[in-house]
Amino acid sequence: MPVGTQGTVKAMLPRDLLNDLDAKIILGNTYHLFLRPGLETVRNLGGLHKFMNWPRAILTDSGGFQVFSLDTLRKVTDEGVLFRSHLNGDQHLFTPESTIDVQLALGSDIMTVLDECLAYPASHEAARVSTERTLRWARAGYGHYRRSADGQHACFPIVQGSMFPDLRRHCAQELLSLEAQGYAIGGLSVGEPRALSLEMTEITTPLLPVDRPRYVMGVGMPEELPQYVARGVDMMDCVLPSRNARNGYLFTSQGRVIIKQSQYKDDPEPVDETCPCYACRNFSRAYLRHLFLAGEMTFSILATLHNLYRYLDIMRRMREAILVGEFPAFLRAQRGTMVS
Amino acid sequence: MPVGTQGTVKAMLPRDLLNDLDAKIILGNTYHLFLRPGLETVRNLGGLHKFMNWPRAILTDSGGFQVFSLDTLRKVTDEGVLFRSHLNGDQHLFTPESTIDVQLALGSDIMTVLDECLAYPASHEAARVSTERTLRWARAGYGHYRRSADGQHACFPIVQGSMFPDLRRHCAQELLSLEAQGYAIGGLSVGEPRALSLEMTEITTPLLPVDRPRYVMGVGMPEELPQYVARGVDMMDCVLPSRNARNGYLFTSQGRVIIKQSQYKDDPEPVDETCPCYACRNFSRAYLRHLFLAGEMTFSILATLHNLYRYLDIMRRMREAILVGEFPAFLRAQRGTMVS
Repeated sequence: MPVGTQGTVKAMLPRDLLNDLDAKIILGNTYHLFLRPGLETVRNLGGLHKFMNWPRAILTDSGGFQVFSLDTLRKVTDEGVLFRSHLNGDQHLFTPESTIDVQLALGSDIMTVLDECLAYPASHEAARVSTERTLRWARAGYGHYRRSADGQHACFPIVQGSMFPDLRRHCAQELLSLEAQGYAIGGLSVGEPRALSLEMTEITTPLLPVDRPRYVMGVGMPEELPQYVARGVDMMDCVLPSRNARNGYLFTSQGRVIIKQSQYKDDPEPVDETCPCYACRNFSRAYLRHLFLAGEMTFSILATLHNLYRYLDIMRRMREAILVGEFPAFLRAQRGTMVS
Repeated sequence: MPVGTQGTVKAMLPRDLLNDLDAKIILGNTYHLFLRPGLETVRNLGGLHKFMNWPRAILTDSGGFQVFSLDTLRKVTDEGVLFRSHLNGDQHLFTPESTIDVQLALGSDIMTVLDECLAYPASHEAARVSTERTLRWARAGYGHYRRSADGQHACFPIVQGSMFPDLRRHCAQELLSLEAQGYAIGGLSVGEPRALSLEMTEITTPLLPVDRPRYVMGVGMPEELPQYVARGVDMMDCVLPSRNARNGYLFTSQGRVIIKQSQYKDDPEPVDETCPCYACRNFSRAYLRHLFLAGEMTFSILATLHNLYRYLDIMRRMREAILVGEFPAFLRAQRGTMVS
């Protein structure tokens, strides 16, 4: 899922997401949209889909990750999390129920429950206490969702448990009783080694219903996507393709291109000659390097278009391989060729 | 002409310029491209059209305006102008001949000769000396163009003369002997009152061949475009539509919209309800205001698209009015409704 933090996937127009990328779903950040433009505005304008002119699916996070990661002054109680806006210092309270209400007002297609996202590393005791809170919040939030939603929206609980297998298993098993339409695995990509993120995923996915989407939040590098899918993951979101694009890091079938390097000064080749995206079909590395060094917004547009295409293309190729029963072969081939 | 200073119209992809705007010609800045990416790179990549993937016409300025307006350390002699790069301080010499060579290497469709662009106000004596130098440079540059070009490129001399009618007339009359394919009027938009820019244009255009393009450099506001056309002007370029777009100033048929204003907070209407551009067909003022306040690049894309559409649409409507003999009526109607 391309990430559309503030009601737009940075540097992309909806028509690019539709026509160039054929993105089926994007992610919106509840925390950011709640603070700006604010719920009232989005509601007045007919919901997030209409506001940003996005006709396809939107998944929203619960806001918890931002509250914890943006390091805004916060106080966590069983009731919820009290935090200050990073924009103007205003104080707000997110509760398991209120974050569902916010996401309902946004018109999210797939909502998520409020969870506590621990930094890495955490002690087992701190993680245990936090996981129990996440479970209480999940039951409260999901119950509120059941009572409030009209059948048009799904809601995913989030498995937490830091890097402790017993807590991950416990959390997953407890959440199963909610019989949700899908499950998220959160609390990864918080600074832990990548092998550990994969290990926690591998422990958790077998416990979650195989016939419902399993979503790992906030991953990963292009070469990691197949590793997650191989562990039973169906959905991921990540800012890497778009953020790295803006910083001049382009993902290709032959590895990463750091476009500012002088080796590309007069390079007439496209970023990735096997890539059919608009950027690769029409522009040279030399031109993209020039735009990047000149600080031109056009660079960010073309680079984002390419990196998102690369990510979605990897996912597309995996789906095709799975459908024809050739995913194991895909994985073996990928291990040989995919570098970053 | 949309302005593409550094090998891109800021925030626009070539496909936007073609499909959304149907721009027939854009402007490239010789000075900027000469310094970055540099001639060698553009030449290696097959010229500016191929480098930036622009299949239609490109007009290039001579670089003189930037040398004078960027206030880089410079020394003007009869030979040319010695200046330092605003990027790295490197010293360069632009001569009437070398600027033609640079533009030929870029592959410009319409080149311009090196001219001296005086600041406003200037004394009559300073303007007289400067105009004579501009004339000598024009003869040298145009002669060099005649000897070097292959018939694929046009070259416009530039009428200077500061705000002095006698100098403007003298300069125009002298340049006529070059029998150029078109003529530019330069040295305007340098800080003078707008009435004076129009007055200088009105004095100059009747002296220039009516069957060849007359191009006023660096103007103007939307409501000024018909004023220039009414004085016989065929071509203009200006950074206003794109620069103002990025700063949140949108031009509409009902006047200017300053998008950050709180009156647009929940405004569901498009920027201009009579405008058929992608931005106006798909997004509300409330959404654009949100993107602007959130500092999203997507705002610059949509705003630039709209403002350039507005400018090119005004020009298109004038061409149509002229073709059917109704330009006087267009002018009268415009005086009544067009505000900014």
